[in-house]
Amino acid sequence: MIQNDVRMPTNEGVQAAAAAVAAILPSTPLLPVDIGGVQAWVKAEVLQPVGAFKIRGAWWRLVSMTPDERAGGVVAVSSGNHAQGVAWAARRLGIRATIVMPHDAPAVKLANTKAMGAEVVLYQRPQEDRDAVAATLIEQRGGTLVHAFGDPWVIEGQGSAAIEATAQLGREPSRIIACCGGGGLAAGLALGAPGSKIYPVEPVGWDMVGQAMAAGALVHAAPDAPKTICDALQPNVTKSLNLALLQTRAEPGVAVTDDEVRAAQRFAFANLRLVVEPGGAAALAAVLAGKVPVDENTVIMLTGGNADPAAYAATIASDA
Amino acid sequence: MIQNDVRMPTNEGVQAAAAAVAAILPSTPLLPVDIGGVQAWVKAEVLQPVGAFKIRGAWWRLVSMTPDERAGGVVAVSSGNHAQGVAWAARRLGIRATIVMPHDAPAVKLANTKAMGAEVVLYQRPQEDRDAVAATLIEQRGGTLVHAFGDPWVIEGQGSAAIEATAQLGREPSRIIACCGGGGLAAGLALGAPGSKIYPVEPVGWDMVGQAMAAGALVHAAPDAPKTICDALQPNVTKSLNLALLQTRAEPGVAVTDDEVRAAQRFAFANLRLVVEPGGAAALAAVLAGKVPVDENTVIMLTGGNADPAAYAATIASDA
Repeated sequence: MIQNDVRMPTNEGVQAAAAAVAAILPSTPLLPVDIGGVQAWVKAEVLQPVGAFKIRGAWWRLVSMTPDERAGGVVAVSSGNHAQGVAWAARRLGIRATIVMPHDAPAVKLANTKAMGAEVVLYQRPQEDRDAVAATLIEQRGGTLVHAFGDPWVIEGQGSAAIEATAQLGREPSRIIACCGGGGLAAGLALGAPGSKIYPVEPVGWDMVGQAMAAGALVHAAPDAPKTICDALQPNVTKSLNLALLQTRAEPGVAVTDDEVRAAQRFAFANLRLVVEPGGAAALAAVLAGKVPVDENTVIMLTGGNADPAAYAATIASDA
Repeated sequence: MIQNDVRMPTNEGVQAAAAAVAAILPSTPLLPVDIGGVQAWVKAEVLQPVGAFKIRGAWWRLVSMTPDERAGGVVAVSSGNHAQGVAWAARRLGIRATIVMPHDAPAVKLANTKAMGAEVVLYQRPQEDRDAVAATLIEQRGGTLVHAFGDPWVIEGQGSAAIEATAQLGREPSRIIACCGGGGLAAGLALGAPGSKIYPVEPVGWDMVGQAMAAGALVHAAPDAPKTICDALQPNVTKSLNLALLQTRAEPGVAVTDDEVRAAQRFAFANLRLVVEPGGAAALAAVLAGKVPVDENTVIMLTGGNADPAAYAATIASDA
């Protein structure tokens, strides 16, 4: 097992990641959005080939591997979007990919990951420790762990979205509001846009980054943490690497409710004609709920669009 | 009432329209799409500010008006997307807009049109002749008719999408597959991409362009024409101007069923994360149903995304 957290990610690394990403993926659109009379911007990461920003970090991690590392394959742990990002990058580079996914991951994410040629190993959430499942796999087969958020290359890759947004705006954003699970995207954006205020947005009860920043130490999710519809945003704890990067740079964490997330999904449907999954709508939810201020230089990340059809239909058809 | 069909639209006019559109609207993304193993392209017009390509023709028509014409206001007839395009352009230019809409137009389109400051006059479909309602309005109040498809500026404006797609592809498309109501978009694309094959796609029973091309003369919809979910694609008859342009340039018309359209809406939801209304999905429906061939140089127009929430939810949640 190769240690991925042997170095700190850097702004130079984000710049290099942005160049590598730009060589293979067109910039996602930065679309105007009217937030109560203020014209802000959304970064439409749902239009990435795998429907999520995760393709950025996965690509930068895998393309940075040595030939020996590539030959050994990669192992990732993910509820679905990082899985698809890694599977996409691995197929493109001819690398064997094994993805550890929870048994209750959305069917669409499981199907897409398999369709891209990755081997999927399921684990039982919450009984089994997914990191332990991955470690055992790597012990048995070898391979490089591609952590979903606590990896310097992954963080730098996610940060490439900030480089794109800055180029598209013509200046650094005043604020970047980001859906936050483990904090890989938020940390990357902080590095990539050093002059922007970074707002990590998490589901209520699963705000492990916000709580860690407030406590100045890692905080684990409570065993009785409430359910959330944001399947992509519920890691049990962030990593020291992410906490270190965010503690000095990010604004205090913001938490959103399921109802606020669903309202944001409906807003994106009606006003942007974009399909956004619950976890991908968290940043927009915080804005619409008035929990984060916006101006005409604010970028709101729409991070993922792999929505379960039945759940999405219920959200769109309802009023709350 | 000013006659708008006093001249033929031209390729030069489409080029000029494209420059005028580019000055105010960024190019809509041209996104890769996997059609049974072939990588074709979709032109995501659903990401226009009003959620439909109609903003192109409306902008070119209104920005081409003289100061005297602008002072007199504009009148348009539309089931919804042309209405929003005209309302958007009129507000931007400070022109009074009156829009004649069917009483059963989708609520979202009525609401959006009013929200942009246009006055909406309803008529009863099918009892009342919408063109007669508009003519009476213009007689009473003056103003310029902005026809939804039979106007040279509107046709040229819609054709600007072909100029963009050609620039984005780096070459003229082999084929452009277009949702077709009255034939304004298809005619504009034919002018804007003279080397591309143009495929107009219409709902079964409402293929008034396809039937007119086959007959060499205008054909009216049958009084007992079947219902269609494509509210944006059911004019009773095309215009001589559109027929003249398409007869020499377009491939034979293609007709799609409601089920094929719904399958295309689900495909766009799951694979492109784009919200597409029924009429906006007709071209993709024809491709997915195997009714039009595709290659790696084919552009499929996704023309509109102003979907009724309840109907969209039912489509996404169902299998057929």
